[in-house]
Amino acid sequence: MTHLSDIEIANQVKMKPITDIAEKLSIPRESLSLYGEYKAKINVSKIGDLENTERGKLILVTAITPTPAGEGKTTTSVGLVDALSKVGKKAAIALREPSLGPVFGVKGGAAGGGHAQVVPMEDINLHFTGDFHAIGAANNLLAALLDNHIHQGNSLGIDSRRITWKRVVDMNDRQLRYIVNGLQGRVNGVPREDGYDITVASEIMAVLCLANSITDLKEKLRKMIVAYTFDGKPVTAGDLKAEGAMTALLKEAIQPNIVQTLEHSPAFIHGGPFANIAHGCNSVLATKLALKYADYAVTEAGFGADLGAEKFVDIKCRLADLKPDAVVLVATIRALKMHGGVKKADLGTENVEAVLKGLPNLEKHLSNIQEVYGMPVIVAINKFPTDTDAELSAVEKACEERGVEVSLSDVWAKGGEGAVDLANKVIELAEKENNFSFVYDTKDSIEEKLNKIVQKVYGGAKVELTAGARKQLKELKEHGFDDYPICMAKTQYSFSDDATLLGAPKDFTVTIRNLKISAGAGFIVALTGAVMTMPGLPKSPAAERIDVDVDGNISGLF
Amino acid sequence: MTHLSDIEIANQVKMKPITDIAEKLSIPRESLSLYGEYKAKINVSKIGDLENTERGKLILVTAITPTPAGEGKTTTSVGLVDALSKVGKKAAIALREPSLGPVFGVKGGAAGGGHAQVVPMEDINLHFTGDFHAIGAANNLLAALLDNHIHQGNSLGIDSRRITWKRVVDMNDRQLRYIVNGLQGRVNGVPREDGYDITVASEIMAVLCLANSITDLKEKLRKMIVAYTFDGKPVTAGDLKAEGAMTALLKEAIQPNIVQTLEHSPAFIHGGPFANIAHGCNSVLATKLALKYADYAVTEAGFGADLGAEKFVDIKCRLADLKPDAVVLVATIRALKMHGGVKKADLGTENVEAVLKGLPNLEKHLSNIQEVYGMPVIVAINKFPTDTDAELSAVEKACEERGVEVSLSDVWAKGGEGAVDLANKVIELAEKENNFSFVYDTKDSIEEKLNKIVQKVYGGAKVELTAGARKQLKELKEHGFDDYPICMAKTQYSFSDDATLLGAPKDFTVTIRNLKISAGAGFIVALTGAVMTMPGLPKSPAAERIDVDVDGNISGLF
Repeated sequence: MTHLSDIEIANQVKMKPITDIAEKLSIPRESLSLYGEYKAKINVSKIGDLENTERGKLILVTAITPTPAGEGKTTTSVGLVDALSKVGKKAAIALREPSLGPVFGVKGGAAGGGHAQVVPMEDINLHFTGDFHAIGAANNLLAALLDNHIHQGNSLGIDSRRITWKRVVDMNDRQLRYIVNGLQGRVNGVPREDGYDITVASEIMAVLCLANSITDLKEKLRKMIVAYTFDGKPVTAGDLKAEGAMTALLKEAIQPNIVQTLEHSPAFIHGGPFANIAHGCNSVLATKLALKYADYAVTEAGFGADLGAEKFVDIKCRLADLKPDAVVLVATIRALKMHGGVKKADLGTENVEAVLKGLPNLEKHLSNIQEVYGMPVIVAINKFPTDTDAELSAVEKACEERGVEVSLSDVWAKGGEGAVDLANKVIELAEKENNFSFVYDTKDSIEEKLNKIVQKVYGGAKVELTAGARKQLKELKEHGFDDYPICMAKTQYSFSDDATLLGAPKDFTVTIRNLKISAGAGFIVALTGAVMTMPGLPKSPAAERIDVDVDGNISGLF
Repeated sequence: MTHLSDIEIANQVKMKPITDIAEKLSIPRESLSLYGEYKAKINVSKIGDLENTERGKLILVTAITPTPAGEGKTTTSVGLVDALSKVGKKAAIALREPSLGPVFGVKGGAAGGGHAQVVPMEDINLHFTGDFHAIGAANNLLAALLDNHIHQGNSLGIDSRRITWKRVVDMNDRQLRYIVNGLQGRVNGVPREDGYDITVASEIMAVLCLANSITDLKEKLRKMIVAYTFDGKPVTAGDLKAEGAMTALLKEAIQPNIVQTLEHSPAFIHGGPFANIAHGCNSVLATKLALKYADYAVTEAGFGADLGAEKFVDIKCRLADLKPDAVVLVATIRALKMHGGVKKADLGTENVEAVLKGLPNLEKHLSNIQEVYGMPVIVAINKFPTDTDAELSAVEKACEERGVEVSLSDVWAKGGEGAVDLANKVIELAEKENNFSFVYDTKDSIEEKLNKIVQKVYGGAKVELTAGARKQLKELKEHGFDDYPICMAKTQYSFSDDATLLGAPKDFTVTIRNLKISAGAGFIVALTGAVMTMPGLPKSPAAERIDVDVDGNISGLF
């Protein structure tokens, strides 16, 4: 076991030229656009068909209901792809790009950890290939065009109190949450209430991640709703003639990025939509590239299997015509004990009883994956030093009773070597019978869709809509948006909409407080409570401890 | 003569791989970081000494007092470097990077024109290598840290009414000029008046362009003043412990970019500070790279020779220890006629008398360059189809009388071929006697420095400070900033501070309305009037006509 930091471990490994990594998968050299020696974009218009092509196996990595520290989905995913490579398979991983916000807020990267990382991790965690900046620019161009339209006479009749499009910045900046702009007289715009989101919350992020091509991107951008008129009609980006210029700003950003893991497995890192107000998965193009060129494509979805996996299935797979072959459910003994009622301070102490008491959470997720989503599943226990044999046996026994395999994964300390057993079991699992299905039909009414998610996946009794949400529901129907899939925005810490209800709660009601159409991305966001779309910095921001030496080496980042 | 658009002309030329272009100058391959096939960054820490090195000749391209359309400095600069290459010299150009703002506002790129362009022009005019986004991120991180400091208890005692640091975005967005942020209660910041600038107006842009190394960059960032305390003391980025994280965000942005001209001359395009509130020149590192690797380094400064060249001399050359070998003063017959009193609509009609009447403007610039800055100079007439022989002769005769060479440049239509005569004359000129000197000594008092600029360069009688500026002057002295050079922010359309005074006015007074320290960049900005640091979009923004086809080809951009 090593005690080095993530960045120290990453710096010990000599990366291979990204051209060598792409060659492993036989990705055509002419489709690569290099960004330095270790990063490249893949121009999808220069490679063959991504749709009618022989595809590899799609492996989804998801997790039980997480603790605030997370259960190590990304680390497990990275370790798994390295282990698949190690046992001789042509494997690739597709992951989300991290946001700059957390880098300067609470210390922490988002590119795996320990010996299971994607590199160059500094670049990936800072500007990378500029995708998020491009999304921010496109988002803010649309906002500038909108306000300019009002300033220049407002021929569309936009109601400035009903503008839904916000400006964005890739930064934790609470000061910008609620603002008034357009102040100081007629040459300086039209005063109105406004606010900023962090870039990953932009609908453009979700659009980019669901687009199949540049043409599809432009069409989705065109449909995005930015405001409503005084007589209640939606105003779109297309009404402002903004989609062409936005697409021009995004023409590189839509091309997936390729980097490598510490063990030189190909990694497609592309797009990073929020897992609450959006669907929380890397881009469709990155996943399809991985499936075209690798025999095993490992990917993950945000939060737990009730939220991320459900949206992966009902939004990403549905809209992109994807079908997963196997699911890895990541669990930790610590999280199970927490679901069993143990306090954070006591999680390091052996407590088999608490593990047993927490198991219903794991079991509910397993039954969802097997019976609701209809996919073969394996449990990967992400090993912590404090785990005891008795605790691990308790989990194994419970899974055995359900006929579910368990694998102990130790990738943080050992890299791919720590997941060879998991890899071998996943290879077997991906050949098993698969009854992949959606949780609901898009033709179901919005209420039916919501109830199916809550009843089938969450184990709750029903949904209840607030008066405001009922009004919004009526409007959505009037505007013809009722056959869109649902994007649930719910706490990730419980199956219910109450973060304190751990384990596998039942008979609860989920309250829908807000229904908002993302007409470009193509889903209805159902908010069960306040969602923070612009984080703030802590009292002692990580930024204060970051430094760069004379040769450009960064310290204090992770 | 061609009637193709700039982008059509650019697309007809097959670019060479950027590695070939760098090889022309023997730039070490290991210092190059590729951004696709035709763009690269040069890691200056991987190349030899930029200071104690044999340097090529430095050629500054400047202009007479311009018309609103501009006189073609960049186009002439690009044509000149191509002509220098054509006559067998090892030549390179160093230019500013364009801002995204104008691209979506009033149609127009900033990478030369016709057959004298730098390419890939679409990339250069859009995100390029991400430098401006990085500068924006560093700028906005500092703003977020500042507001977070106040939110978390304000231990530095920052007076929120005296915050001088604004957020930025690379967009024309008048709605953001004057805002109130931090609204909606204590968890959402502290309410205050605020506003946005366009990214090129950020002090970080000026800092990056004047930094000699990463260490120097960090030191300059540390010194930037962001606010004042309740008892009037400056608060710096260093006080907020922000310089390390900002430097981390800028570690790629500080590395100069290399691209090529249409005729494959090496072009260093790097940095783009405003020419009013900043010094309006490309980065010091780009200029020094061009001087190290080429025998002739062509560069330009913003606006006319009274503004851009003065700041090039007194700020850039002084701070970076550079010495120009020759100056090209770009003039157009159209602009001379305008200075001679002709209205815009009549500029196409022959009018020798008006040319003669406009010549004092040219002559004042020539005498400034020769006698005040002490450098050899040549006049390049940027040819327009409407110019007549009689008009051209009038200019030639006047210059002959002063002993100044004239060359007719036709690079827009003919590329380097159109400036072979100019190139040959520049080569001779650069060997001539050179009495390069600054307009003032930094040890002069602020008033003396201002008066020397106004009297020696502008030809005015004196400066006058408003009551507010006098108070600021006192503060600058108290804080020990009185030995900094001056950065004049004045209209580019007149030698005076009154845009309507054409030709070579005399006996005027220049009113200084505002004195602001840029302590990181290292100069005092003297504002003679309102300067727009956040443009707006026009009634029919260029963005509405930009489109992208299925293969990612952009139309409507230029």
